[in-house]
Amino acid sequence: MTRVTVRRRVRRLTIGERTSQVEDLLAGEEPLEIRVGGRSYAVTMRTPGNDVELATGFLVSEGVVTDGAHVAGARYCAASPLPGGPGSHENAYNVLDVALAPGVRPPDPALAREFFTSSACGLCGKASIDAVRTRSAFAVANDPVRVDAALLAALPDRLRAAQDVFARTGGLHAAGLFDAATGACLVVREDVGRHNAVDKVVGWAAAAGMLPLRGTVLVVSGRASFELTQKAVMAGVPVLAAVSAPSSLAAELADEAGLTLVGFVRDPSLVVYSGGHRVVERAVEHAQDGRGDAA
Amino acid sequence: MTRVTVRRRVRRLTIGERTSQVEDLLAGEEPLEIRVGGRSYAVTMRTPGNDVELATGFLVSEGVVTDGAHVAGARYCAASPLPGGPGSHENAYNVLDVALAPGVRPPDPALAREFFTSSACGLCGKASIDAVRTRSAFAVANDPVRVDAALLAALPDRLRAAQDVFARTGGLHAAGLFDAATGACLVVREDVGRHNAVDKVVGWAAAAGMLPLRGTVLVVSGRASFELTQKAVMAGVPVLAAVSAPSSLAAELADEAGLTLVGFVRDPSLVVYSGGHRVVERAVEHAQDGRGDAA
Repeated sequence: MTRVTVRRRVRRLTIGERTSQVEDLLAGEEPLEIRVGGRSYAVTMRTPGNDVELATGFLVSEGVVTDGAHVAGARYCAASPLPGGPGSHENAYNVLDVALAPGVRPPDPALAREFFTSSACGLCGKASIDAVRTRSAFAVANDPVRVDAALLAALPDRLRAAQDVFARTGGLHAAGLFDAATGACLVVREDVGRHNAVDKVVGWAAAAGMLPLRGTVLVVSGRASFELTQKAVMAGVPVLAAVSAPSSLAAELADEAGLTLVGFVRDPSLVVYSGGHRVVERAVEHAQDGRGDAA
Repeated sequence: MTRVTVRRRVRRLTIGERTSQVEDLLAGEEPLEIRVGGRSYAVTMRTPGNDVELATGFLVSEGVVTDGAHVAGARYCAASPLPGGPGSHENAYNVLDVALAPGVRPPDPALAREFFTSSACGLCGKASIDAVRTRSAFAVANDPVRVDAALLAALPDRLRAAQDVFARTGGLHAAGLFDAATGACLVVREDVGRHNAVDKVVGWAAAAGMLPLRGTVLVVSGRASFELTQKAVMAGVPVLAAVSAPSSLAAELADEAGLTLVGFVRDPSLVVYSGGHRVVERAVEHAQDGRGDAA
């Protein structure tokens, strides 16, 4: 079941030049149904691989578990015939059933649905933020970690260097976890869905007993949406760094949760949107105007 | 309710240089709850604006409606107090109730849930593709349209030129609909979510009575996932062009549905993944090796 990449014959053309038929590698995409205790909980389109991490991280994001030990085990469903089909018994390894540890409350599908809709017609960004705050077990705001601005600026290049599949397909998002003090890369995961890449990273950390993720920086390729910011907060990550722009609601959630949010991180520069007290600039020879600590 | 962009004071820094505090514009992101006939159907995080188009396009993608006339109207829910709150009566314009025309069958939430999960443990990419094929009212494969390769290669630049908000925030995805014969831009929509941008385009077209979208090219910034490909098929679009890579399942769905899928469209070159018979190359002075019609 190595379907991380899929081979395909394609036609590559440049206007006015010769057309060529070449073998190309595409990023694999397959549905994954996540079940909890035998009950269907969610379906996501993901790149196969690290599925248990993905399911675990997803459950952390949803507030169902806060520690790897809360997951007793996970198994792919045994093959079963397609309903109404010719009785195919192929196991596609796309249905993963997670068993929670004794005492861990299974998710209530009705509650999950209400995560964003609890305020009825008053539904607004603030309600979404409140929902995350209510659910999060970790106080990100209390993490005293500081991170050197120059180190921070260099992380996306390290993430890219570690992107194995992207180099071959150009088709995958990535998320990486780094030590805020040393810049050491702890783990990198890739997926066609950026949210899946983050869930895989968080699930890996949960299994390693690392939650809450104090003293770390989560780096994501592309933009920082509300959803990714939510996942950082739910995992106790104090610093989220995006290669591109954050959304308005991502910045608002970061404010409320005490998360440091930086965007457009492209060595040697970056933009601090929230929690700027954690981003430390080393003294430069030119005079500073003393406003460097704001934002 | 113009919250397409949100102003924010940020700290912009470049290592070794002076830090500056500047006003920045962020892409707006807010939840939208889509209701059908008063019943909650879906919640999406989107950039406010063109919400009726978004809801209509989403319902086309889901197979609930196939024509703008199937939507009798849509209204934002009237203000209501937050449950348990201090009685706030603010209307956040984030809950939109769609009224279907008489005779149009409302979606069954149970069915919607089963869109991807109908094959139980046999869940696989093929099942997802079959689900789209079963639901789609339009036969994309029958669209005889052809598109000039040079015209196709130039479309992403036209899309980018029409991206009003991206120019200001760097934070929005875009989708644009173009005439396959002339390259004329019919509509462009932007959103923090690429799927929302496509839904807005499709909803606009549905309201204009243009479904199925024969003879058009749908251009999307970024990658082409299964989800975006599905939306193109459900709206009857014959050609989908992405600035970056498609996923494996996007290409497979394109094969099955008879959709032309091109990726890495960056003037003057592009890659044809599926339905290459529609991509016409004008004769060049150099000899052709005659293999240009494959893929």
